[in-house]
Amino acid sequence: MIKRVKTIFAILLVALASSLLCSQSFAADKVYRLKLAHSWPTDFPIFGDAIKNMADMAEKMSNGRIKIRIDSKNKHKAPFGIFDFVKSGQYDMGHSGSYYWKGKVPNTLFFTSMPFGMTAEEQYAWFYYGGGFELMQKVYAPHNIVSFPGGNTGNQMGGWFRKEIKSIDDLKGLKMRIPGFAGEILAKVGAKPTNIPAGELFTALEKGTIDALEWVGPSLDLRMGFHKIAPYYYTGWHEPGSELQFMVNKKKWDSFPDDIREILRVAMRAAAYDMYAQSYHESAENWAKMKTEYPNIKVKTFPQAVLQAMKDANDELISEMAKKDPLAKEIIESQQAYLKKVRAWTKISDQSYYESMEKLK
Amino acid sequence: MIKRVKTIFAILLVALASSLLCSQSFAADKVYRLKLAHSWPTDFPIFGDAIKNMADMAEKMSNGRIKIRIDSKNKHKAPFGIFDFVKSGQYDMGHSGSYYWKGKVPNTLFFTSMPFGMTAEEQYAWFYYGGGFELMQKVYAPHNIVSFPGGNTGNQMGGWFRKEIKSIDDLKGLKMRIPGFAGEILAKVGAKPTNIPAGELFTALEKGTIDALEWVGPSLDLRMGFHKIAPYYYTGWHEPGSELQFMVNKKKWDSFPDDIREILRVAMRAAAYDMYAQSYHESAENWAKMKTEYPNIKVKTFPQAVLQAMKDANDELISEMAKKDPLAKEIIESQQAYLKKVRAWTKISDQSYYESMEKLK
Repeated sequence: MIKRVKTIFAILLVALASSLLCSQSFAADKVYRLKLAHSWPTDFPIFGDAIKNMADMAEKMSNGRIKIRIDSKNKHKAPFGIFDFVKSGQYDMGHSGSYYWKGKVPNTLFFTSMPFGMTAEEQYAWFYYGGGFELMQKVYAPHNIVSFPGGNTGNQMGGWFRKEIKSIDDLKGLKMRIPGFAGEILAKVGAKPTNIPAGELFTALEKGTIDALEWVGPSLDLRMGFHKIAPYYYTGWHEPGSELQFMVNKKKWDSFPDDIREILRVAMRAAAYDMYAQSYHESAENWAKMKTEYPNIKVKTFPQAVLQAMKDANDELISEMAKKDPLAKEIIESQQAYLKKVRAWTKISDQSYYESMEKLK
Repeated sequence: MIKRVKTIFAILLVALASSLLCSQSFAADKVYRLKLAHSWPTDFPIFGDAIKNMADMAEKMSNGRIKIRIDSKNKHKAPFGIFDFVKSGQYDMGHSGSYYWKGKVPNTLFFTSMPFGMTAEEQYAWFYYGGGFELMQKVYAPHNIVSFPGGNTGNQMGGWFRKEIKSIDDLKGLKMRIPGFAGEILAKVGAKPTNIPAGELFTALEKGTIDALEWVGPSLDLRMGFHKIAPYYYTGWHEPGSELQFMVNKKKWDSFPDDIREILRVAMRAAAYDMYAQSYHESAENWAKMKTEYPNIKVKTFPQAVLQAMKDANDELISEMAKKDPLAKEIIESQQAYLKKVRAWTKISDQSYYESMEKLK
């Protein structure tokens, strides 16, 4: 009997020692099954590609330990519910646009793109080396969310108009689909901005519910057919570098081991940058296609007086926001100081270069 | 005796079973110790940061399974030996500039930046969505190297000159430090280009060994003191978006398990993009500093006739290269077609935006 007990004890001891030796490895094999909800339809191009790119990189880099289930708005039915999903933990992650939450948390407005603001390359410099990322966390942390850049569309076009805009008077009473802060600017100069879901835009324009609209740019506009009704296509002023957004539930984020958190951080960061390159590529391709296949589109830039009136309205609205809230003030001052400094460099580098090259044979 | 054998047998069986169960985990714990050689001095800013950023991300994401030893040129003494180090496997990885190898493998020239070519954002679109990356591998694979973008400096300044360049005649006989393809262009228009190591540049300029030089831009130029001797600082034309380079020994690369390879791929990619944002930031900061602390610097753009003469020389040289080699022809045609398409988009998006914004109050 004692011998048998000894034997069993010895066997257990070996088993215990073996399992201790590889316990750390077993822990490393834990699978993190995460759910991500996004604001876009299933298989939405570019935006959807960025999400898949991120999930693929995370799964491969973690050797299958991170598995992200991606739910489109077709599944969860709440394209503008992503903030609440992630805050509550109903979803672990989200992909959307920060300025969609401005009705709920006004300071989220500043992290997509600001009218008359920074372009993508300027804004990335601000996000990662000029304090932007830290300010973003200040806004999101109280809501149990960690927020990251989620992919840049590049400079957005100013929209499709039935008639040419020759002066600020042409904007008065104009019914235009234009969301976000740019909509507030248009209201201030006398237009009637509304927001209409993507699927109803063409019909609204056709029926005259709206006279004009802005969507994204050639990369995503042509398939919508707007040019058939509203052939004046204006260059941009209102979203010079729109950055989408990845969100992670903060409690979940803090619970990850260091390697899993770093894999997710880097996968989101690389996927966001990649989307900017993809947007640039798709815009170039579709712009070329537009010039050859849609010769009736009239490309215009708003007259300087119209832009100035919108800029004045912008400055007034921004300064009202800064007065109301200290954190808004901090963000606005950071962005304005950075824009001034970074644009001076852009002027002497890329801008000067483009202008010189344009004149060469 | 039989009982004791049975007992030992049982113990061994349990030990074997336990170890089999976690054998896969043990394999996953293998540490990959890689050696990287780069072309820069120890602790070189921005370029060196990109390498450290990559190595840190790889180590953290792999939970310590990837450890990269970084050797600067101070250690290995061969700043222009990186290509051979990585090809032979003496080092597993490298960080340098692709155009440094043009004397050895002429087609490596095309993957840093081309005079009159694409800016960083245009070039990333070409690399990752326009076929550039695949062409790069075509050039490097026969040399047992996998090559990746390694960080962008942004648009480089055209250099420091003792006197103003008013016409192409002012370039004739001018002794200028300017490496790479831009040097060949200057030779064709009558200048005398040379290459001089960074450490000797100031003395060479002071002693009149050279009359002018180009280095990088405000992010790295000011500390060199060139402005004290050559106060004319010209905007860029010759390196509109210089991309550095990560290299990996191909045999080593192919031997990695999938997760290790993906971690390295994504870490290099994110570090390269990050360096572009950091360069943009540092350029903006140092440009602002320059304007306040160095009021004697005279910022100029080359007269259009000078640029045109250099462009004509560029076009001739490029067309000679295309005639000599089918792969050169393929790369040149890919770049030229892409540049035409992507610049048309840049003109209507960022360029048009910068021009409109500049005129606003």
